[in-house]
Amino acid sequence: MNKLFIEDLYTLKGYTPGDQPTGKIIKLNTNENPYPPSPKILKSISKILKTGLLRKYPNPISDELRIEIAKQNKIKKENVLVVNGSDEGLAILFRACLKKESTLIMPDPTYSLYSVLASLCFTNTRLVKIPLLSDFHLDFETLMQQKGDLLAFATPNAPTGIIESKDKLIQLISNFSNAVLCDEAYIDFAPKNSSLIPEIKNFKNLFISRTFSKSYSLAGLRVGYIISNEENIAELLKIKDSYNLGMLEQKIALEAFKDQKYLSKTVSKITNSRKKLTGKLSKKGFQVLESNTNFLFAKPPSPYKADELFEYLKSKKIFIRYFKDTLTKDYIRISIGLEKENKKLLKEIFAFCKL
Amino acid sequence: MNKLFIEDLYTLKGYTPGDQPTGKIIKLNTNENPYPPSPKILKSISKILKTGLLRKYPNPISDELRIEIAKQNKIKKENVLVVNGSDEGLAILFRACLKKESTLIMPDPTYSLYSVLASLCFTNTRLVKIPLLSDFHLDFETLMQQKGDLLAFATPNAPTGIIESKDKLIQLISNFSNAVLCDEAYIDFAPKNSSLIPEIKNFKNLFISRTFSKSYSLAGLRVGYIISNEENIAELLKIKDSYNLGMLEQKIALEAFKDQKYLSKTVSKITNSRKKLTGKLSKKGFQVLESNTNFLFAKPPSPYKADELFEYLKSKKIFIRYFKDTLTKDYIRISIGLEKENKKLLKEIFAFCKL
Repeated sequence: MNKLFIEDLYTLKGYTPGDQPTGKIIKLNTNENPYPPSPKILKSISKILKTGLLRKYPNPISDELRIEIAKQNKIKKENVLVVNGSDEGLAILFRACLKKESTLIMPDPTYSLYSVLASLCFTNTRLVKIPLLSDFHLDFETLMQQKGDLLAFATPNAPTGIIESKDKLIQLISNFSNAVLCDEAYIDFAPKNSSLIPEIKNFKNLFISRTFSKSYSLAGLRVGYIISNEENIAELLKIKDSYNLGMLEQKIALEAFKDQKYLSKTVSKITNSRKKLTGKLSKKGFQVLESNTNFLFAKPPSPYKADELFEYLKSKKIFIRYFKDTLTKDYIRISIGLEKENKKLLKEIFAFCKL
Repeated sequence: MNKLFIEDLYTLKGYTPGDQPTGKIIKLNTNENPYPPSPKILKSISKILKTGLLRKYPNPISDELRIEIAKQNKIKKENVLVVNGSDEGLAILFRACLKKESTLIMPDPTYSLYSVLASLCFTNTRLVKIPLLSDFHLDFETLMQQKGDLLAFATPNAPTGIIESKDKLIQLISNFSNAVLCDEAYIDFAPKNSSLIPEIKNFKNLFISRTFSKSYSLAGLRVGYIISNEENIAELLKIKDSYNLGMLEQKIALEAFKDQKYLSKTVSKITNSRKKLTGKLSKKGFQVLESNTNFLFAKPPSPYKADELFEYLKSKKIFIRYFKDTLTKDYIRISIGLEKENKKLLKEIFAFCKL
């Protein structure tokens, strides 16, 4: 029997998503939003469900949603590619940019999917990972010297939660001669006007990715979008699956997107909880990075170890995230939960740390 | 400014899905099911919608649905890959099989997406298209002589609706030394026991694709699956997007799949209409191929031309499909509609043909 698949596939390691434990637990490990999505989504799909409309093919390019996204961002619908979760958007962009022996530049650490997506292109792409500085900021000096086919970073970054100054990011983009992915998955939790979307007018090489999974409380839906100049989007459209989004996703995302009031309310609740949680942990000697996201990245006070705290919380059925790489091994990442979950979390953290 | 994307993308032509006209029309052009999906799906998702569960990530491998599909087919869940519409399944398989300068063998005509997916692999894959015989059956003699990295065909075939004998197909699969895709999108409309799923035990190179878009009336949902031996599925799983299916899709497809009684009822209605429609067209001199699908492929009696009939029906707001290639140019493809739609269709066809 011949080998059925290309050689690179057999040696490939797939992406491992964060644990999805179920049961009576407190789940603060995958940066899900603790609040439900806009209540308006329910009504929006009842017509589709009751009239049997699902028997028909959906709009192949999610046109209604695309138009609404464009309107709100004061861009054209041709600047928007709606995707089956921003992960699909990233996959499409990587496949469009990476050819044989390409170079992908990225900070380290950042969203771990980037390197997986590069390997999935089967192009033997060279990964150049630029370590964060010791204060967890991007190393702009080194990044500015890089040449490659794609530069990918998240703003705010994960798992640190740090956002860089817009000026510096713009300088980095204008300095890079090929495609730049700016992943804004958490941007709704950052200060107003942090987004680089207005810059697509100025930089033809800029791609912004967004998701409904975090601020819109719709991780279970799988909707995201890519924003770039219209020639770029026209090319990327060729790669997406013919009907990449179902009817229900298109409709639910549209309603959630229109309900900006609800979004603001949920985001406020989370940023308030974030402030409280940061304050309480800091007061007890935790080193907490300034978060611009719906999670905290924090280092327990000496002599307590991050990995031991992680394991202890797990034993108490509180799931957070721990990354054992050199730069992150002393830190834990905690998604902001409901107020009562945050309280339970603090109680257990302080019990472990004898604070 | 450098070119941002790989050279092959710029020259690529994307896939054009069938027209999706709206308004007061009769839509018989994309083989959608005229009947609504199982009424049970409504109840199944109300819990997800009412409890705000959509805020959480879905199961990454659609495990519940996978188990149910396996159970009903008397195979293991490890034999099943659930995908975001069978198109995603095909895309994954093509990317897994096609390396630089690979060869893809396919009958001609068949589902036109195959060649698009091959070009989307950016591997400069050689397409070997084996024309159907003049009776629209597969040219087994020629197919048996081919060598390549992937052999792809649909059973029943589109746009002909013809199904080949199981023995001949098995001989073809056993003779081919690399991967074979057997696309069973329409198999539920074919005689019982036509599926090649039981053969995955015997052939390690066999991949079956299935969809919920046709017989289950869920084209708007985007769910399909690939069945193969478990080592193959484990490799393909590495390629799929981390969370390729949303929660609602998983649940709705599961409920629809469990409701086999409803499926049988809908399929019976369609096969009955198919028989009636075939009879009436044949009696008036149309040459109608024996359909095993939810569509007919038919040649108008002389002197009437297929393309003119197509245009005439369009002017009457009845949308069917016409393919102007050499082998198909004398035929029209008609999706089976509701009884009243079929009647209106016949009336207009007979008016045009003065029958």
